[in-house]
Amino acid sequence: MSSTTAGQVIRCKAAVAWEAGKPLVIEEVEVAPPQAMEVRLKILFTSLCHTDVYFWEAKGQTPLFPRIFGHEAGGIVESVGEGVTDLKPGDHVLPVFTGECKECRHCKSEESNMCDLLRINTDRGVMLNDGKSRFSINGQPIYHFVGTSTFSEYTVLHVGSVAKINPAAPLDKVCVLSCGISTGLGATLNVAKPKKGSTVAVFGLGAVGLAAAEGARIAGASRIIGVDLNAKRFDEAIKFGVTEFVNPKDHDKPVHEVLAEMTNGGVDRSIECTGSINAMISAFECVHDGWGVAVLVGVPNKDDAFKTHPMNLLNERTIKGTFFGNYKPRSDLPSVVEKYMNKELELEKFITHEVSFSEINKAFEYMLRGEGLRCIIRMDA
Amino acid sequence: MSSTTAGQVIRCKAAVAWEAGKPLVIEEVEVAPPQAMEVRLKILFTSLCHTDVYFWEAKGQTPLFPRIFGHEAGGIVESVGEGVTDLKPGDHVLPVFTGECKECRHCKSEESNMCDLLRINTDRGVMLNDGKSRFSINGQPIYHFVGTSTFSEYTVLHVGSVAKINPAAPLDKVCVLSCGISTGLGATLNVAKPKKGSTVAVFGLGAVGLAAAEGARIAGASRIIGVDLNAKRFDEAIKFGVTEFVNPKDHDKPVHEVLAEMTNGGVDRSIECTGSINAMISAFECVHDGWGVAVLVGVPNKDDAFKTHPMNLLNERTIKGTFFGNYKPRSDLPSVVEKYMNKELELEKFITHEVSFSEINKAFEYMLRGEGLRCIIRMDA
Repeated sequence: MSSTTAGQVIRCKAAVAWEAGKPLVIEEVEVAPPQAMEVRLKILFTSLCHTDVYFWEAKGQTPLFPRIFGHEAGGIVESVGEGVTDLKPGDHVLPVFTGECKECRHCKSEESNMCDLLRINTDRGVMLNDGKSRFSINGQPIYHFVGTSTFSEYTVLHVGSVAKINPAAPLDKVCVLSCGISTGLGATLNVAKPKKGSTVAVFGLGAVGLAAAEGARIAGASRIIGVDLNAKRFDEAIKFGVTEFVNPKDHDKPVHEVLAEMTNGGVDRSIECTGSINAMISAFECVHDGWGVAVLVGVPNKDDAFKTHPMNLLNERTIKGTFFGNYKPRSDLPSVVEKYMNKELELEKFITHEVSFSEINKAFEYMLRGEGLRCIIRMDA
Repeated sequence: MSSTTAGQVIRCKAAVAWEAGKPLVIEEVEVAPPQAMEVRLKILFTSLCHTDVYFWEAKGQTPLFPRIFGHEAGGIVESVGEGVTDLKPGDHVLPVFTGECKECRHCKSEESNMCDLLRINTDRGVMLNDGKSRFSINGQPIYHFVGTSTFSEYTVLHVGSVAKINPAAPLDKVCVLSCGISTGLGATLNVAKPKKGSTVAVFGLGAVGLAAAEGARIAGASRIIGVDLNAKRFDEAIKFGVTEFVNPKDHDKPVHEVLAEMTNGGVDRSIECTGSINAMISAFECVHDGWGVAVLVGVPNKDDAFKTHPMNLLNERTIKGTFFGNYKPRSDLPSVVEKYMNKELELEKFITHEVSFSEINKAFEYMLRGEGLRCIIRMDA
């Protein structure tokens, strides 16, 4: 493959978003070769995440169109640019919306995954090397999205945004580890770190929250309490190890009090996956004094304020935030793939829909209707 | 000693607070023998902590008088009550204002020191066993304070509030480990856990804050930045390893921005030892994204609200509170005493004054004037 296309412009299909909120259009695009420290990938499978939809709707940010969205995917390296030594054509990889340069203070810190160079940037639509796009249609540049743009048969990424994984791993399954599932899983396993036998509350039973619950199941939590305003989510959640459900609408008292009563004073760990500021505050206030840890995952609105009485902290509670489940994409994702390979982690249950690339707009419809968890988009169909 | 007084009422001197804010009066009191799970101590040295003064002033709480204050001290077991097997007459001990029953969920948790049975209770003036005081003057009961009441030659405590220590340790030095010094030291060593070479900010350079700085020095922090509104505290702080000083009054911009500029984005760890809500918020907002941890030690006002933008958390910052430096008093204080014995921990620099028991009101005056750090009160003089 690389022998024939390396160094050449590739013409292939991509789903282009021409305007905010309008259906994507499958177009023939030109994909330039990778420059220094870049790699070009052939995408085999991609899936749709809320973040794609959020920036496609462009309600809360400066719109940047035309653009190729997509950031959860699995693919194969087609060719590599100058200076790339870690990857070679044929490697199986997961693109990641936030990178790991391995050089900055964050990458060198054991505690952080917020790379200075390649940290998520939703405003930038071009490559770092030359400030330009690698996508074009008849000479008109098409913008990138979070450095991944996986809604294209071929795409170009910075090498730091590409995790090399076990080639035996089925890409149509592990592609969901590119973003949401790892985010929830890592929030539990890397940050909340519940002990065996402990009680964990998960706020928000979407894909990220259910991945957090899956993490609690893997960690051996004995009680996993799901909290969601949508009662319909409860049936599905059982598959993810959720043992009890609380719908705040069913109670007159604040949900943190409901949880405290259910658990003799509070849960051991809580994980907030909604982004609602009230849920964040409840997720903190529902943990037990002395040892409780609340982990924030959901992204809040710009004007939100997290507010609590400081005695809630003084009584030996902890609150931490996490980004991409504290996974360093290149260093850590391979081991998450191994968790799936050795059957510790179940991914099939997250995949509720599958469509061909030509039907990509259906995936948007499922998500907008709140149907299912992850829709896999097959690029070859 | 025990052979002659065990089981008997002891008549001895105690400093009684008859009214809020009025000088203590040295009185002859009767100290009843210890009941089940209680011990009676001969106090040799005690020191004065802000908490004594706060409850003696009784401005913020229900007054409870007459009362015997005092909770930082060193002493020797005189006799033990029924069921006490861990201590015997002659043992050298530190009384502690918060206990460790070793039976409750908190004591059994590795993560908590907030014992359900013996957690600090400033409203209770009597012993748990019979709901009565062991102190009296001519039959009139005198109330206890936080289960310790060390401003008396003899006092009775629950066995869970007594830490047995190395008998070779000088009680006139290690007595300061009963409360404030351990609180600050543990906040750094047990909770903030700075790595060698890291940068630590300490808000508030009183005894607790300086103990937090001492912890950072022991942990090998390369920069220890002291923050205080009182410029006079800076000279003393150098002895405690503080390398730089910031007085928020000297800057137009918020102190967390000043610290971020000094440290290329934020400190690695911060420890808040003032109890001011603004300092708490600054202490959180001054830590570096990706790995920063803020630890709250100071006790806030009842109506305070801790408020921050949740993105400050999402960017992988952590905030935790601690109580008594997360030390379990009986299990952990002996090892803190050993840190002093092997010269890792310096205590002499905390001891700025010494008075005889008859001059105890002088210790209150020093503290009210903000003079010095700890005043040792010698019971035999």
